[in-house]
Amino acid sequence: MTKPVVGLNIPAEVGMALADVSTPALIIDLDAFEKNVKTMGIFIKDKGIRHRAHAKTHKSADIALYQMENGGACGICCQKVSEAETLVAGGVGDVLVTNQVVDPKKIDRLARLAGKARVLVCVDDLGNVDDLSNAATRYAVNIECLVEIDCGASRCGVQWGQPALEIAIKIAASDGLTFSGIQAYQGAAQHVRDFTDRKARITTAVQQVADTIKMLKQVNLECDIIGGAGTGSYYFEGTSGVYNEIQCGSYIFMDADYQRIKDEEGSFISEFENSLFIWTSIMSRAKRDQAICDAGLKAQSLDSGLPVIFGRDDIEYIKCSDEHGVISDPANVLELNEKLKLIPGHCDPTCNVYDWYVGVRGGVVECLWPVTARGMAY
Amino acid sequence: MTKPVVGLNIPAEVGMALADVSTPALIIDLDAFEKNVKTMGIFIKDKGIRHRAHAKTHKSADIALYQMENGGACGICCQKVSEAETLVAGGVGDVLVTNQVVDPKKIDRLARLAGKARVLVCVDDLGNVDDLSNAATRYAVNIECLVEIDCGASRCGVQWGQPALEIAIKIAASDGLTFSGIQAYQGAAQHVRDFTDRKARITTAVQQVADTIKMLKQVNLECDIIGGAGTGSYYFEGTSGVYNEIQCGSYIFMDADYQRIKDEEGSFISEFENSLFIWTSIMSRAKRDQAICDAGLKAQSLDSGLPVIFGRDDIEYIKCSDEHGVISDPANVLELNEKLKLIPGHCDPTCNVYDWYVGVRGGVVECLWPVTARGMAY
Repeated sequence: MTKPVVGLNIPAEVGMALADVSTPALIIDLDAFEKNVKTMGIFIKDKGIRHRAHAKTHKSADIALYQMENGGACGICCQKVSEAETLVAGGVGDVLVTNQVVDPKKIDRLARLAGKARVLVCVDDLGNVDDLSNAATRYAVNIECLVEIDCGASRCGVQWGQPALEIAIKIAASDGLTFSGIQAYQGAAQHVRDFTDRKARITTAVQQVADTIKMLKQVNLECDIIGGAGTGSYYFEGTSGVYNEIQCGSYIFMDADYQRIKDEEGSFISEFENSLFIWTSIMSRAKRDQAICDAGLKAQSLDSGLPVIFGRDDIEYIKCSDEHGVISDPANVLELNEKLKLIPGHCDPTCNVYDWYVGVRGGVVECLWPVTARGMAY
Repeated sequence: MTKPVVGLNIPAEVGMALADVSTPALIIDLDAFEKNVKTMGIFIKDKGIRHRAHAKTHKSADIALYQMENGGACGICCQKVSEAETLVAGGVGDVLVTNQVVDPKKIDRLARLAGKARVLVCVDDLGNVDDLSNAATRYAVNIECLVEIDCGASRCGVQWGQPALEIAIKIAASDGLTFSGIQAYQGAAQHVRDFTDRKARITTAVQQVADTIKMLKQVNLECDIIGGAGTGSYYFEGTSGVYNEIQCGSYIFMDADYQRIKDEEGSFISEFENSLFIWTSIMSRAKRDQAICDAGLKAQSLDSGLPVIFGRDDIEYIKCSDEHGVISDPANVLELNEKLKLIPGHCDPTCNVYDWYVGVRGGVVECLWPVTARGMAY
């Protein structure tokens, strides 16, 4: 392996001025990032709940450890076995895979990982309970299982009530497994713009969870973890009196889409600040009313819309192609090589195209964090 | 650096059955891929033109060399200096950056690279000519420059005619630089569905290029390269009698969006086959009429729409979230752990989220090619 070179594999080095960071790069405003972590830490302490911070957003062991050490996170969530392996290798000792693991080889890896750290996983299939139990027994480890209920996202998860109960009972009776509770993440509610609509969806989810817990109690099954919630809804689950673990990811960075959801007064949610930006340069000024920047489709994910230029209302990112961003510049103010901060449309998949986070404070590069689990979708 | 492990960093190993490849993975049907490369090789030989294959699609030195050795490609195009560096390091000796390079540090790197390989770059700014010339002189190298004209894509590039002429004259008069011709890529025409509309756009571009060449000839400037064209339009430029180099990328892989564009008879373009697939597994079957697969937003780019399930019309990929794909399965035929091939919506940015291509023939993994320049957008 060739030694990494600034400008080829790595966009910056520690001590460099932000102005000199190679573009496009993914930069973190460390002051805003730290404030976001702290804000969430205060919330959970205040409400007497736990926060299992979701690493699907950042895929970084450095950030996961920061969330645990400075934001009161009790552990980390992730979505894939390879992410869990990477986080444990990076020093995280408590990992929940908020997803089903059904492939025999992945189950095997998960069981091996449970010999190195506390490992939890979600289950929505009775046959999967047997497979997990066999693997845990084979390696003489314990895998903690949460029954996932579909509380409105219409993805994975069984129906609340009886179907969840059946799986819970089977887990509790299986060697090598512990029934640890319920996973109930309403993923489809997170980006709902309207406060009342968003709240109503979570109210429904909370009721389904509460009813399921009641049924579990009747067969003497207690839930150590009643988990779910994301940045768009955490306030509801976190104050529900039912959920005891929230699982926010995007709150550390925020993005353009999360800033379109509104609070009770119709304002945009404001307790978290934008800390994640795509640092981009103007590379063509051949036209009077538009400039071309170097952050296109390969520098971000467009699934939730175009990026927004941070701190500017005189110019607008209006079109994105593979390698170019078209910026409307009616007053013709942008110059060649001028640099801009873009707020990505959607932070999670945008982070997944970068190898490095460039941490910046006061205009100077303070740290470089690898996106440890970048591309790890296995 | 830890040794790569199958299932963590690498989805497969040579000799493995396709069925055992870890999902989601990016697989290449080698028979279809080789046929596509051969088909393009026959076309350019037949028409007496050159093909400078575009590596922005695949970002792989292995594939670039294959295109040169087996498809008659005279050289390779790429979009970024870091891609060019990576391709040259991988053995490619002739690279055109089909883009502007204006950042002083990137110009410096480009000049250094010109000491190792034939290096060409596009220019749309008079000041940039000075900067390139200074860097080339500093390293005692020659950088070949193409004047980029905006022939309809409305991104980079100056207007055809006089503005292009001015830059060409300046390049020709600058130390360390060679004026090598015209870059005229109509990027906005590539995915236009209708044949007549697509053809009309290229006809306009060809006329602008022809007029510019005529003006250049009047000041004794000859174009070694008159280049442009992509998979959606190459037939028009390639038979125009004006362009002498085409620059196709997607033809090696194809994707769902390219299969929506039509030929003269209103049929879908059929000379190239799908050779690139996302290999995915069913990971949840908790609902009767839908299955969840493990290829979500982080396993592809959605900018050109959802992926299409290859070879199946009884099931449909209908929704994509960060980590999940929702597959409509009205007849309830999909089983847990069953595997499917997805045709990505857009091949280029989809390749950019993977570290490896898994080359498959006859159901067996034949090769693993690293996505050499993955994430290299600098």
